[in-house]
Amino acid sequence: MSALDIKSINTIRVLAVDTVFKANSGHPGAPMGLAPAAHVLFQQMKFNPKNPDWINRDRFVLSNGHAVALLYTLLHLYGYSLTLDDLKSFRQINSKTPGHPEADIPGVEVTTGPLGQGIANAVGLAIAQAQFAATYNKPDFKISDNYTYAIFGDGCMMEGVASEACSLAGHLQLGNLIAFYDDNHISIDGDTNSAFTEDVTKRLESYGWEVLWVHNGNEDLAAIAAALEQAKKSSKPTCIRLTTTIGYGSLLQGSHSVHGSPLKADDIKQLKEKWGFDPSKTFDVPQEVYDSYAKTAAAGAAAEAEWNELFSKYQAAYPELGAELARRLKGELPAGWEKNLPTYTPADPAVASRKLSETVLTKIQAALPELVGGSADLTGSNLTRWPSAVDFQPPSTGLGEWSGRYFRFGVREHGMGAIMNGISAFGANYKAFGGTFLNFVSYAAGAVRLSALSGHPIIWVATHDSIGLGEDGPTHQPIETLAHFRAIPNLAVWRPADGNETSAAYYQALTSTHTPSIIALSRQNLPQLEGSSIEKASKGAYTLVAADKPDVIIAATGSEVYIAVDSVKVLAAQGIKASVVSVPDFHTFDRQTEEYQLSVFPDGVPILSVEVMSTAVWSKYSHEQFGINRFGISGKAADIYEYFGFTPEGIAERATKTVEFYKGKELLSPLHKAFYSAKYEFHKY
Amino acid sequence: MSALDIKSINTIRVLAVDTVFKANSGHPGAPMGLAPAAHVLFQQMKFNPKNPDWINRDRFVLSNGHAVALLYTLLHLYGYSLTLDDLKSFRQINSKTPGHPEADIPGVEVTTGPLGQGIANAVGLAIAQAQFAATYNKPDFKISDNYTYAIFGDGCMMEGVASEACSLAGHLQLGNLIAFYDDNHISIDGDTNSAFTEDVTKRLESYGWEVLWVHNGNEDLAAIAAALEQAKKSSKPTCIRLTTTIGYGSLLQGSHSVHGSPLKADDIKQLKEKWGFDPSKTFDVPQEVYDSYAKTAAAGAAAEAEWNELFSKYQAAYPELGAELARRLKGELPAGWEKNLPTYTPADPAVASRKLSETVLTKIQAALPELVGGSADLTGSNLTRWPSAVDFQPPSTGLGEWSGRYFRFGVREHGMGAIMNGISAFGANYKAFGGTFLNFVSYAAGAVRLSALSGHPIIWVATHDSIGLGEDGPTHQPIETLAHFRAIPNLAVWRPADGNETSAAYYQALTSTHTPSIIALSRQNLPQLEGSSIEKASKGAYTLVAADKPDVIIAATGSEVYIAVDSVKVLAAQGIKASVVSVPDFHTFDRQTEEYQLSVFPDGVPILSVEVMSTAVWSKYSHEQFGINRFGISGKAADIYEYFGFTPEGIAERATKTVEFYKGKELLSPLHKAFYSAKYEFHKY
Ligand SMILES: [Ca+2]
Ligand SMILES: [Ca+2]
Repeated sequence: MSALDIKSINTIRVLAVDTVFKANSGHPGAPMGLAPAAHVLFQQMKFNPKNPDWINRDRFVLSNGHAVALLYTLLHLYGYSLTLDDLKSFRQINSKTPGHPEADIPGVEVTTGPLGQGIANAVGLAIAQAQFAATYNKPDFKISDNYTYAIFGDGCMMEGVASEACSLAGHLQLGNLIAFYDDNHISIDGDTNSAFTEDVTKRLESYGWEVLWVHNGNEDLAAIAAALEQAKKSSKPTCIRLTTTIGYGSLLQGSHSVHGSPLKADDIKQLKEKWGFDPSKTFDVPQEVYDSYAKTAAAGAAAEAEWNELFSKYQAAYPELGAELARRLKGELPAGWEKNLPTYTPADPAVASRKLSETVLTKIQAALPELVGGSADLTGSNLTRWPSAVDFQPPSTGLGEWSGRYFRFGVREHGMGAIMNGISAFGANYKAFGGTFLNFVSYAAGAVRLSALSGHPIIWVATHDSIGLGEDGPTHQPIETLAHFRAIPNLAVWRPADGNETSAAYYQALTSTHTPSIIALSRQNLPQLEGSSIEKASKGAYTLVAADKPDVIIAATGSEVYIAVDSVKVLAAQGIKASVVSVPDFHTFDRQTEEYQLSVFPDGVPILSVEVMSTAVWSKYSHEQFGINRFGISGKAADIYEYFGFTPEGIAERATKTVEFYKGKELLSPLHKAFYSAKYEFHKY
Repeated sequence: MSALDIKSINTIRVLAVDTVFKANSGHPGAPMGLAPAAHVLFQQMKFNPKNPDWINRDRFVLSNGHAVALLYTLLHLYGYSLTLDDLKSFRQINSKTPGHPEADIPGVEVTTGPLGQGIANAVGLAIAQAQFAATYNKPDFKISDNYTYAIFGDGCMMEGVASEACSLAGHLQLGNLIAFYDDNHISIDGDTNSAFTEDVTKRLESYGWEVLWVHNGNEDLAAIAAALEQAKKSSKPTCIRLTTTIGYGSLLQGSHSVHGSPLKADDIKQLKEKWGFDPSKTFDVPQEVYDSYAKTAAAGAAAEAEWNELFSKYQAAYPELGAELARRLKGELPAGWEKNLPTYTPADPAVASRKLSETVLTKIQAALPELVGGSADLTGSNLTRWPSAVDFQPPSTGLGEWSGRYFRFGVREHGMGAIMNGISAFGANYKAFGGTFLNFVSYAAGAVRLSALSGHPIIWVATHDSIGLGEDGPTHQPIETLAHFRAIPNLAVWRPADGNETSAAYYQALTSTHTPSIIALSRQNLPQLEGSSIEKASKGAYTLVAADKPDVIIAATGSEVYIAVDSVKVLAAQGIKASVVSVPDFHTFDRQTEEYQLSVFPDGVPILSVEVMSTAVWSKYSHEQFGINRFGISGKAADIYEYFGFTPEGIAERATKTVEFYKGKELLSPLHKAFYSAKYEFHKY
């Protein structure tokens, strides 16, 4: 451990401590304990702070995101666009240094803080790298060989999402994944003895990981470096268990008091004195530390330059693959890919929308090498696998190839969601999809909201989307699910009514650059509708059946749209004129012009919504709601629809009551508002 | 293995196969593979089919709930109130035999199907038993000594919620928990080799479990029985790894083809012929099997009678504890307990509602021995621990006692939710609570919906309930969260505005018999409001500030209510008369009379809602919505409120626009409906 190493490590510590103290908020303990490992790790990593998007950079994920002061400090010291002033405005409003790492900050790979997500994202980053390398590397052209590094803590290890992802990483033999476990024996409730006494080493080994143990993570830099070298050679994911002291150097080191509150002024003073810093100064960085880290950054920039040269030669040697890769790196889809999207006419047979989704995937997959995905052990139910698909598996298993594009996620919905986020974060325009029943996307709620917050345009293929799944019953039938997801900002929630709408959902999902999508799909057959089209559905809502001066507008989604259409005839027989509006996606419709919105839902006409689940979010578009505000029931799909009244006659009955109730009353469209809320002020996207 | 054993096992198999075939839907494979273990297990279990609620019965949880035909078959054969006709209407509408086990069916302990939940419920059942026994057992009075048994499959083991709960079970040394792992190497995607190659034995051992392995689970009844005996002696939770053949006996045994579809008719024919059943008959039970199982049932009934006698003597020997226990077994709270609930006047200081919650828990805990709970490693933030609390811990840890009522759940929100469900399912009036940040209740979404579906009146202490948590930023700030939970049927979602409303939330949550509650609580201080009371808040919504002929009604919740009250003065200065309605819980308000609802939100007055999160569900009560339909931001709480406009002036500005917009327009209350949906038809409660 050279004097410069020590100075560098203590600089990280002191800067993190100053950052938290200035903010009067944050977590100094983990940065202080982890500074040695971070120093050794970053000094041997390959990255260019001037181009944080370089595709072959090593990735670093801070899964214990509350230790963010460590990450911001490192990014500053290595010359990313994060100034001392940014550190000084840590956790303040509209700063570049929010309370937990956010993916759009240069140098931050993924948004972390919600525990367990980061390590699962890292698994996704490693999967993407393996698939990417197998797809594009050629003898003498190592286009991709980066590692994915992560640090996680006790909290992450306790979270189920981490368990799921780590088990899959072991199965997949991801030798490119190296994670430090910050074994500091402290969590918020105090000593981990109170709740977490499992043998972490043995657990990770049971998943198929290699586990190395650095017993003195506070001081033994040589052991850290040696462990990293060994890990890089492993053909398994490696965990470097790092026993550290939380808040190392503080008067309160080793206790949970240093976890989540700033150190006291006198504690900081003794720290700085002990380590040779001027206690009267804050945010004071020795020039030799800047200089030393700048060398690593310069080496990274040189590595990128070398890579750029390699890639030029690659494009010459492999023009087709080279062009494809260049396109992907620009984040563009291939010209004309969308011509593969199937379209339908009412003459086409009724098909379940999960099957329509399979047709889309099958038809577009050849054009889109960046399309990768799988299912959480429901392949045959979600219909997510096209016939020629190759599984992504270690070739030694005999079950697939590293270049395979189909993932067997296992029954791990939350892990799947976080892994998709990691694949998306890798770059190269990856479009990841994951299948499960709509009801079980809820298991992944933590990952879903991070997709939206981070702007990962991943896709959930969410089949069995309602009571229409039938016999599996209320444990599997979504009721609150669409309301939940429609309330998440920056998330599209498609529920297509037929083939054209299914193609529209995929078109929008795949062309989206920062908005994730859930596509809710039926188990039961749906007829192809007269009047639907990709273009119309792409507006999120449109008038499917237009009556002249309608007495009522019926708004429906997915498998209820054709029933609503059938109810028009029933109503006509009673002398009531009804229009039908199909609403495949709230998110997209909310982004249309007010003029368009009011053309679909105009003033003066009562609007009745029809959807076989919670009515909670429908008042925003409709005056009356026909839905199911209770749990479902086991039975044949047709029996259940009948039981709840979702038949042409049942809808007509509610529509008639709606017409009668509003007769002679002045009526505004629910979309006609007195003011706009923070509705169009998006967080980032 | 006697001839009767074989006959019994094959009867279970054939009955399960017939049940699935008749329904033309369901899962025959697992019941066929698990019949031997189920037979051995049930023959040695202690239960009385005539009183499935006997508190000292052994519990059985089928975590792989899709194998429900096994469970229904067993319940029928042992004489629970489930007839052959019920089996014949398996999975049909409104039958007593829904597609997955539901907790209100006599003999079914917990609702399962969503994978991983059952084994986590079993951990809760075992925790409850240990706490219950330690509380009430006395020398010579073994009031409680039951075991909790479970069966889980590969799917459960892949789910994170199971990992969380099993790790905690190991830490807690739950020797009363015995779980069979159906190691059949098959999941829906086929051989588990494709996604699940971890060493399950080693993993469970790493958690602190004992693992026994029965290599021939299809035939080796002696090994199964021996494993059970050994497991019952262990001071750790025990997993009996049972290698079985899925669909044992079928022509397709060992393949995933027998997992989720009925067997073919010819396959059933050969099965029956092979096992000596008449292939021309269905649902045909040999009398000797009924007789043999009836003996076990009779032994269970005798055991209950003995226990009742023991309990009588106990009540005499320990009148106080005996009376308490008798009360709890009746499901009653102690008379007058609610007098401990604190009340407040505006003269009392402003306090964070998480702190008000701590005061409630501290004041009521002595009166309510059935109140048990803890936090997911956020004790000091959630303020869930009263000063005199004792931790529930194995005494050998030196950290607590088996009779302790405070749980250290670790960072395991999903596991905590499922464990609370298990504790509630134990009976004895247990009222379980669990603390975490509101945003991370979403991690437990799978368990939350099962609380509601099963009617477990558990309580989430959900602090840090909004952007008001400040510096932790958007990764921790709920936006969609309340919309999500408000859309779940049979779930109360309280967001109290002050001390009286906090007491009301607890009063309602604790007196609820079948409705779970989430209580959303602030990190920041809230003043005690003029006009609030436990009684008024207990209606879910009420007029807090009543203007005479108001120009506008402002509806708000939680930490926004006092700001809305302050905006009334700002509006008054502009000549606008505003009322304020506090809406602490939608669920409760939705259950008030229409008359009351319309007295709170009458026709003719524009209503503006104010809440610092998604407006998605507010249109049902209001014409205009002021909220946040984007992700939050890091910063000081006051700065963030100011940034988004949630100040008296900001609210007044929107209220003014609302008044202007609706001036001269005819206006109906959003609660004035043309018809009622399935709104008041609840699933079961
Ligand atoms: Ca820790
Ligand atoms: Ca299995």
